[in-house]
Amino acid sequence: MWHQTTIRLSSKSRGYHIITDEVLQQIPEIKQINTGIAHIFIQHTSASLTINENADPSVRRDFLTHFKRMVPEDTSMYEHTLEGPDDMTSHIKSSLLGSSLSIPITNGELNLGTWQGIYLCEHRNHGGRRRLVVTLHGE
Amino acid sequence: MWHQTTIRLSSKSRGYHIITDEVLQQIPEIKQINTGIAHIFIQHTSASLTINENADPSVRRDFLTHFKRMVPEDTSMYEHTLEGPDDMTSHIKSSLLGSSLSIPITNGELNLGTWQGIYLCEHRNHGGRRRLVVTLHGE
Amino acid sequence: MWHQTTIRLSSKSRGYHIITDEVLQQIPEIKQINTGIAHIFIQHTSASLTINENADPSVRRDFLTHFKRMVPEDTSMYEHTLEGPDDMTSHIKSSLLGSSLSIPITNGELNLGTWQGIYLCEHRNHGGRRRLVVTLHGE
Repeated sequence: MWHQTTIRLSSKSRGYHIITDEVLQQIPEIKQINTGIAHIFIQHTSASLTINENADPSVRRDFLTHFKRMVPEDTSMYEHTLEGPDDMTSHIKSSLLGSSLSIPITNGELNLGTWQGIYLCEHRNHGGRRRLVVTLHGE
Repeated sequence: MWHQTTIRLSSKSRGYHIITDEVLQQIPEIKQINTGIAHIFIQHTSASLTINENADPSVRRDFLTHFKRMVPEDTSMYEHTLEGPDDMTSHIKSSLLGSSLSIPITNGELNLGTWQGIYLCEHRNHGGRRRLVVTLHGE
Repeated sequence: MWHQTTIRLSSKSRGYHIITDEVLQQIPEIKQINTGIAHIFIQHTSASLTINENADPSVRRDFLTHFKRMVPEDTSMYEHTLEGPDDMTSHIKSSLLGSSLSIPITNGELNLGTWQGIYLCEHRNHGGRRRLVVTLHGE
């Protein structure tokens, strides 16, 4: 069985946001899959997807702090600065964290570890609503 | 054909470890697949999976050195410090390196390049036994 | 339907190169797939694949500048230096950016966002022709 759908997320502020439930609400078809893979793909180059800790909000705040330090918003370091200091840095962070996730499906559910959640990493100051293509496949 | 299994790795010290053989020993079913994909997923947020050089151990030591420098263990930089300086830094490294791998299967084997091996990246000082979900799929 | 093929890219200079068309030319079979996944895997540990902005060449130049800064080519920081300052740094960048991509297929095409392209990230000064294994799967 294959199922593919496009999801538009609600608009998020700059930062790291858990979207596990927002995604799952759009793919009830997952319950029909016993063994398979869920593939989630973001159609943008200035926001990304990752899996990380789903409990303590300080983890997401520390992600924001760390990536600001590791990819400094100093326009003198970049050529591509037309849209401001959060433009090129967002492209770099997108590739560091990645544009897709593949997660095992087991007995109709995402087989995540106890502490794992799906993050939308919004790197732009005003990113707007982001579009995901979700592909479920299994038996 | 779909095959899915959960693997518990042996406990590893902090650092970068080649686990290609340890994983392959648990999935003899791969021999039945002519063309397909092996998906390996780690159910943790403080250890990760990557593919890199499988020969010279100095590469794995240099990974450890580099990531300590790039993600400094300085608790004054983070809020999430309850479990010590290797806590938040492990979450960040996990997302930088990623929680899953997809590898082509060709003629019953992982179709890795000559110098490629699967690394478990253990970011915690005492991470314990890590759990992987391996999903094989192909024809 | 499964389709798997090995592609040898033309030799690229050190830097970030859009290879979307070069890959698509080798996989006309994608047109037969209505819903599926394209998996692209690089069989090397000193070059990587990522998805990023497909329009302005300054983005790719800024990638080069940023990664040189973030992973400094200073051999005093590494043990594994036999092949020069671009050796160990290439291994690290490969794992940061990743060795494979999974992209949804929709109506016979890669379902990329408007601004997305596939990058070959050539981290070596003289990397030569790189080998990709492309696996298409869908219905």
